[in-house]
Amino acid sequence: MSKTRTESDAFGEIQVPADKYWGAQTERSLKNFEIGSITMPVPIIKAFGILKKSAAIVNTKLGKLDPKISKAIQQACHEIIEGEFNDNFPLVIYQTGSGTQTNMNANEVISNRAIEILGGVMGSKKPVHPNDQVNMSQSSNDTFPTVMHIAAVTQIEHNLIPNLESLKNAFAAKEKEFADIIKIGRTHLQDATPLTLAQEFSGYVQQLKFGIERIQGTLARLSLLAQGGTAVGTGLNAPKGFDVDIAAEVSKLTGISFHTAPNKFEALATHDAAVEASGALNTLAASLFKIANDIRYLGSGPRCGYGELSLPANEPGSSIMPGKVNPTQCEAMTMVCAQVMGNNTTITFAGASGQFELNVFKPVIAYNLLNSIQLLGDASRSFRIHCVEGIEANKKRISDLLHKSLMLVTALSPHIGYDKASKVAKYALEKGLTLKEASVELGMTTPEQFDEWVRPENMIHPE
Amino acid sequence: MSKTRTESDAFGEIQVPADKYWGAQTERSLKNFEIGSITMPVPIIKAFGILKKSAAIVNTKLGKLDPKISKAIQQACHEIIEGEFNDNFPLVIYQTGSGTQTNMNANEVISNRAIEILGGVMGSKKPVHPNDQVNMSQSSNDTFPTVMHIAAVTQIEHNLIPNLESLKNAFAAKEKEFADIIKIGRTHLQDATPLTLAQEFSGYVQQLKFGIERIQGTLARLSLLAQGGTAVGTGLNAPKGFDVDIAAEVSKLTGISFHTAPNKFEALATHDAAVEASGALNTLAASLFKIANDIRYLGSGPRCGYGELSLPANEPGSSIMPGKVNPTQCEAMTMVCAQVMGNNTTITFAGASGQFELNVFKPVIAYNLLNSIQLLGDASRSFRIHCVEGIEANKKRISDLLHKSLMLVTALSPHIGYDKASKVAKYALEKGLTLKEASVELGMTTPEQFDEWVRPENMIHPE
Amino acid sequence: MSKTRTESDAFGEIQVPADKYWGAQTERSLKNFEIGSITMPVPIIKAFGILKKSAAIVNTKLGKLDPKISKAIQQACHEIIEGEFNDNFPLVIYQTGSGTQTNMNANEVISNRAIEILGGVMGSKKPVHPNDQVNMSQSSNDTFPTVMHIAAVTQIEHNLIPNLESLKNAFAAKEKEFADIIKIGRTHLQDATPLTLAQEFSGYVQQLKFGIERIQGTLARLSLLAQGGTAVGTGLNAPKGFDVDIAAEVSKLTGISFHTAPNKFEALATHDAAVEASGALNTLAASLFKIANDIRYLGSGPRCGYGELSLPANEPGSSIMPGKVNPTQCEAMTMVCAQVMGNNTTITFAGASGQFELNVFKPVIAYNLLNSIQLLGDASRSFRIHCVEGIEANKKRISDLLHKSLMLVTALSPHIGYDKASKVAKYALEKGLTLKEASVELGMTTPEQFDEWVRPENMIHPE
Amino acid sequence: MSKTRTESDAFGEIQVPADKYWGAQTERSLKNFEIGSITMPVPIIKAFGILKKSAAIVNTKLGKLDPKISKAIQQACHEIIEGEFNDNFPLVIYQTGSGTQTNMNANEVISNRAIEILGGVMGSKKPVHPNDQVNMSQSSNDTFPTVMHIAAVTQIEHNLIPNLESLKNAFAAKEKEFADIIKIGRTHLQDATPLTLAQEFSGYVQQLKFGIERIQGTLARLSLLAQGGTAVGTGLNAPKGFDVDIAAEVSKLTGISFHTAPNKFEALATHDAAVEASGALNTLAASLFKIANDIRYLGSGPRCGYGELSLPANEPGSSIMPGKVNPTQCEAMTMVCAQVMGNNTTITFAGASGQFELNVFKPVIAYNLLNSIQLLGDASRSFRIHCVEGIEANKKRISDLLHKSLMLVTALSPHIGYDKASKVAKYALEKGLTLKEASVELGMTTPEQFDEWVRPENMIHPE
Repeated sequence: MSKTRTESDAFGEIQVPADKYWGAQTERSLKNFEIGSITMPVPIIKAFGILKKSAAIVNTKLGKLDPKISKAIQQACHEIIEGEFNDNFPLVIYQTGSGTQTNMNANEVISNRAIEILGGVMGSKKPVHPNDQVNMSQSSNDTFPTVMHIAAVTQIEHNLIPNLESLKNAFAAKEKEFADIIKIGRTHLQDATPLTLAQEFSGYVQQLKFGIERIQGTLARLSLLAQGGTAVGTGLNAPKGFDVDIAAEVSKLTGISFHTAPNKFEALATHDAAVEASGALNTLAASLFKIANDIRYLGSGPRCGYGELSLPANEPGSSIMPGKVNPTQCEAMTMVCAQVMGNNTTITFAGASGQFELNVFKPVIAYNLLNSIQLLGDASRSFRIHCVEGIEANKKRISDLLHKSLMLVTALSPHIGYDKASKVAKYALEKGLTLKEASVELGMTTPEQFDEWVRPENMIHPE
Repeated sequence: MSKTRTESDAFGEIQVPADKYWGAQTERSLKNFEIGSITMPVPIIKAFGILKKSAAIVNTKLGKLDPKISKAIQQACHEIIEGEFNDNFPLVIYQTGSGTQTNMNANEVISNRAIEILGGVMGSKKPVHPNDQVNMSQSSNDTFPTVMHIAAVTQIEHNLIPNLESLKNAFAAKEKEFADIIKIGRTHLQDATPLTLAQEFSGYVQQLKFGIERIQGTLARLSLLAQGGTAVGTGLNAPKGFDVDIAAEVSKLTGISFHTAPNKFEALATHDAAVEASGALNTLAASLFKIANDIRYLGSGPRCGYGELSLPANEPGSSIMPGKVNPTQCEAMTMVCAQVMGNNTTITFAGASGQFELNVFKPVIAYNLLNSIQLLGDASRSFRIHCVEGIEANKKRISDLLHKSLMLVTALSPHIGYDKASKVAKYALEKGLTLKEASVELGMTTPEQFDEWVRPENMIHPE
Repeated sequence: MSKTRTESDAFGEIQVPADKYWGAQTERSLKNFEIGSITMPVPIIKAFGILKKSAAIVNTKLGKLDPKISKAIQQACHEIIEGEFNDNFPLVIYQTGSGTQTNMNANEVISNRAIEILGGVMGSKKPVHPNDQVNMSQSSNDTFPTVMHIAAVTQIEHNLIPNLESLKNAFAAKEKEFADIIKIGRTHLQDATPLTLAQEFSGYVQQLKFGIERIQGTLARLSLLAQGGTAVGTGLNAPKGFDVDIAAEVSKLTGISFHTAPNKFEALATHDAAVEASGALNTLAASLFKIANDIRYLGSGPRCGYGELSLPANEPGSSIMPGKVNPTQCEAMTMVCAQVMGNNTTITFAGASGQFELNVFKPVIAYNLLNSIQLLGDASRSFRIHCVEGIEANKKRISDLLHKSLMLVTALSPHIGYDKASKVAKYALEKGLTLKEASVELGMTTPEQFDEWVRPENMIHPE
Repeated sequence: MSKTRTESDAFGEIQVPADKYWGAQTERSLKNFEIGSITMPVPIIKAFGILKKSAAIVNTKLGKLDPKISKAIQQACHEIIEGEFNDNFPLVIYQTGSGTQTNMNANEVISNRAIEILGGVMGSKKPVHPNDQVNMSQSSNDTFPTVMHIAAVTQIEHNLIPNLESLKNAFAAKEKEFADIIKIGRTHLQDATPLTLAQEFSGYVQQLKFGIERIQGTLARLSLLAQGGTAVGTGLNAPKGFDVDIAAEVSKLTGISFHTAPNKFEALATHDAAVEASGALNTLAASLFKIANDIRYLGSGPRCGYGELSLPANEPGSSIMPGKVNPTQCEAMTMVCAQVMGNNTTITFAGASGQFELNVFKPVIAYNLLNSIQLLGDASRSFRIHCVEGIEANKKRISDLLHKSLMLVTALSPHIGYDKASKVAKYALEKGLTLKEASVELGMTTPEQFDEWVRPENMIHPE
């Protein structure tokens, strides 16, 4: 039997594992919500550390909180930010819809740790009370949306955007590398007029450039903090100016610019900003899905597919066949994209379902939003390192396909007329010839004329 | 038997209704795609008018198109813009994924109408050829994404945004009207601390304000035009500068600022801009769903619901019961929101499924995007006129609920202490008393003290 | 100015177009819900004809309705079933969430037509009152879910299933036709061990077989009728047994087996049966998306793609290039699938949003469900006729790819050992040789041995 | 520094933690796919134990595998089934889309554990080779879809269905308990004719009954196993009959009836069965969303909401207000439902995206499907225990609302006529009277007549 400690709340006493810092409400919630196994994401825990530290600083500044207690709270929060208490946040996502129990989890851990720092008895709530002091001037209803925004913005700025920039740069480097490679274009999956491989990759660069802009555009609202609204948005029990000061303090601690939400009723009762951000992530997922799909098709083969690209081999593709390189990074990426699209549906439904003064789908929104951010960031990095940077063009294959295609016939039209050009193409298709062979065989051109007139390099830009 | 006219294309001759202006390719498509009954949205038809007129102007300016023919084309386009040929666009959404057949439909109608204007024989393709002249310097692959953007931006600017502004203003007017009405707050659907009805409505105003910002934010990319990319994005067959000139001409014709897309490969092969815009519309749908839901619950009753608001009665709610006013505008609005969310799923899947140089889900994306824009615009107007502007506060009911709530007990705490206040609340709940009755009966306060200390108007802002 | 007639309801008098049969409530709704342009689907109108006719028969049988009036009502209903009044149902989808106004639209049209038949004055409500007699024993709340089920089941049985069966049979015919064609398999898009083209197509046949089973499985609940629940599910105002009799009468009129719902509260307050059916349609959409995608990739080329299949050319693919056959039927099909997936999201959210005794998202659910049914049925027919039945195998291309693939090397292993076989494959890949050339060049086999040992026809079934 | 062991694969040697049983391919995958933190669900690991044990048994029975080695493999598999090696499956979901690396993870762990049992050297692959013996007659391409089905069916049968049955029974018990409680009905959220609380709950019972039927209906296809198809569905390298024998063996080990899939091409290249099952789970989510929503609204208050139900208090709702019981179980349940709906989107898109002979979205489909199953099962249990079983009817409140409602006026109509009844209702609404007061005051009835005629108990069933 493991040792326990007695903790209490309004419902009475309860036994808590002696080696854990959480209190009665966390313990109760553990028993009341045995639903799945996904616990609150680490960025949320860290954001609680940032927020509670900021609150202690501001409460002390406003003369409400004893500086000595404040200092202990700040130290406890610092340790949470450093990740030292991640295993003290055992609650799952599917709990109270306001995230109240995770807010209390944070209050309890900070309180007990601060008590410990100050030499008190854990569970005594003295001299640091989880509600009266750690939660001072706050309510679950404004802290949880605040940490959602802190966590999401921080993860976007520190993980997602840098990985997207790197991926974009990797594609841009390939664009440069592939500048002179002319290849067949494909529309409706059918052979079409040519373009350079660089032009094809330039589309991916542009998609990522826009993708970054889209996500950054959502920060205008995602960086607004609900803190200061307290229970219903009126700010009852919070000192005047608490909201603005908290935003300033959080900005200082994170190095990212946050502002207080202009309307706290909107900030508590809705998660429109999360739905919006998820929409931008969903768009990015659509972009990456297209890119990864293109690349695996262009790399399909080695003999019986498009075969224009060689993708790096990172693991044995098959124990039997040499040369079988499966596009596993493309597969991981497209699976991530499908997940992000589903997360968007969840966030949309949850975001639409707020009621009166509170949206009580906060944890599920927080989890799905942070999950999308992390997956897209991680997958972009993995895809770049293990796939994109190692892509090689199969120049011979690309050239072979280009030259046996029939679409180059369009270049003959100005010289021999549309009807004759059309005949050349049809004849080549029927007889299985190249355009040049057909043209010469039909007496439409000499070989020299053909080579002079049919130049793919003249077909890759406007007149 | 109705009269027909002979038209032809590369597949041969085909009979076309004599009173219609379309040609062989449209007629063929009618037979090949008997899938559902939803035809191309009118804003797409109109956008084709705008684009083809612009193309005629630019082609003439660049010396490629005979001014006389150009003038006839422009007149035909003008008539299309005016809606005179809407019944000449019979093709359904589920056709070629590039929208080729609707582009040809436009080319054929314009060609035949221009021929008619110039005194020629319809179907003769002389002196105005649908491909060579109406489609000059263009490809279906760049015209269709261009009209998608023209149509979407135009509808957003001219229909959606104005209706959202009006709805926002209607809520703002109610906010002003309800400034002095203090009511019970509700979190987790449970009675909570008070706020004003104006504060509650201010959240809706903020949601709409942000909603408008979100949609406007997507225009940065939605107002970029693919035109000039031609078949695969290289611009082959288009004169240099055609792309920039077209954007300028379209801007002039619409009075809205459009620009040429910086990368035509992205503009043809993806519809990320549509996915992005749909994400913003989806967020707006989440907002409006919440607002309409709140309002119908606050208006529920008349006797057995929340009953804080009276909604306008627009139609008989029941043939039996007087006073039964169904929140039908809220119902229409929430149905629209569910549709928009589904449209977003369609657009996401379709947008992610581009291949190589072309995304061939163009018509289904166009339809769903324009449908979302129209539905949200129309529903916002209907909801405003037939519901929001007529909302009345049931002041007596609001006051009764506020004063019988137990949450006001928090105001007693500073005066008689938390424990005694708690007893008052519990006693009131058990005995079915008001707080005041309980407080006086328990001897905690005099009636006068209670009235002095418990003032909801002091509970609706920070300390 | 067009002529009008005066009609009235509880809200007073209103002018209605003289040549229309609808009454005051329809007219009022037209003005109150100007949202989009999609009107109630024809199968719903027809189902109202069936239901109201059944109700008249049962009410007369139970002695509640004068046989002479009943007969006139039945005749009017018959005409509605025949489609003669489709243009008398002008209301859009986004209206009252119970579909009340379309129920009243039906009542009004039937009443006025029956009055006309009996020689009365339209609008007089005599001798056939829209509420008292056409709507006798009914409520909008039970009629609308009833017509939703009648319409959906009828469309599934008469349109969707037959078209799916035909498509399945078309694939089965191709399976038979392609029995002897051995081709390269592809996993991860990479060349893999061989299979027959028939085996590949057999997967499509199985998908459709299961797809039909899935949809039929949902009919167990979709064929249950809410009728008899009246306003809240209790059946107040309906005679005992009305529910069972109606189901019997509807079965007789449609030739399809319907039953009364075992629990009317569930039948009014939820649309779980519609969500379930949409889930089966969504699964079918996933199947068809995969099939159409495979086929267009296998048909990609003609020179620079997989090129194993030739798809029928139904329309000019490009005005420039002969042989460019765009897979337009695949494109239409995949667009339909994306639409159905989005419809499923709409139906899910709408279906989840019932409140207490009524789900008020009925029209949007009805529209999306019927739209999915129709689109899948129509697209299956179009895809079959214009694509599948005309698919041809490019035997030479298939054989070339098979024989130049490296995967056949696995057949050498038992004879020369894994290591040597591996060397053959690597050598072939490096040098651009066939396996046979490599094997002979390396002295691993004689040409004759190679041909004897490497037989694809032995690689397409278990040992 | 922790100790390591050398393992190898076709790519060469690699260091593996000495205390882990996995080998080179698992270790390589750990480094190649650092994407998120969600590892393969435990039911998948357990299903691999079941499958690999079955394969060893069948391979031995068919004379392909040495009985001594087979026995060691079986023992290792038994330990995996018992959960002893859960921490030896470290790979995340977002990896190779065929799940190859988790199949190899299983092969490697089983091989090393069997080697250990037989006294060999871990990493030596002797005498038990991960590919040649543990994976004998199998391919990743058929094992992974097989374990997906084993895991899903097992979880449905052992976790989900029992929890749904219990929840259904809990509602049925409440239905019995609430048989005599007549309450106001609500349609469009507006007061309507009465029903019993039992009738309201009977709708929930019916929803769950149908929900169970729906899920069970999908087992017809979800219990079909892909095993025996090997790499592309042909069964190459598997002995004849292996597929049927494996299904029999898995059935024996699990006690659940599994069958071999009739078409292995469909079973590898699609996950239609998973999309179908997810559709049924999605429908259940829609049901539970409605139920949980109803219950929290009916329990809203305590003073300012509907207040008809009392929900159990499981944790402090607010530190300030006694009587504040938040419907936290309803909140957890609705969050779960939103998650399941999003999972359905992910599964749909992933399921639609198979290519040729393989769908390479297997892990993301497996994870989301199992996640939906677990969450719905867990949430149903939590909701039942912590909410439904403790629901109490507030009889007084229910009665008060019923009797002050105006809808009972319909019962007066037959006695005093519709017009007079209508006047009574309007008068009551205007003056704030009960119907009885209004009726008497207007002289329409005596108090005794009113009590005799207006009897809610006569309004809750058909005539």
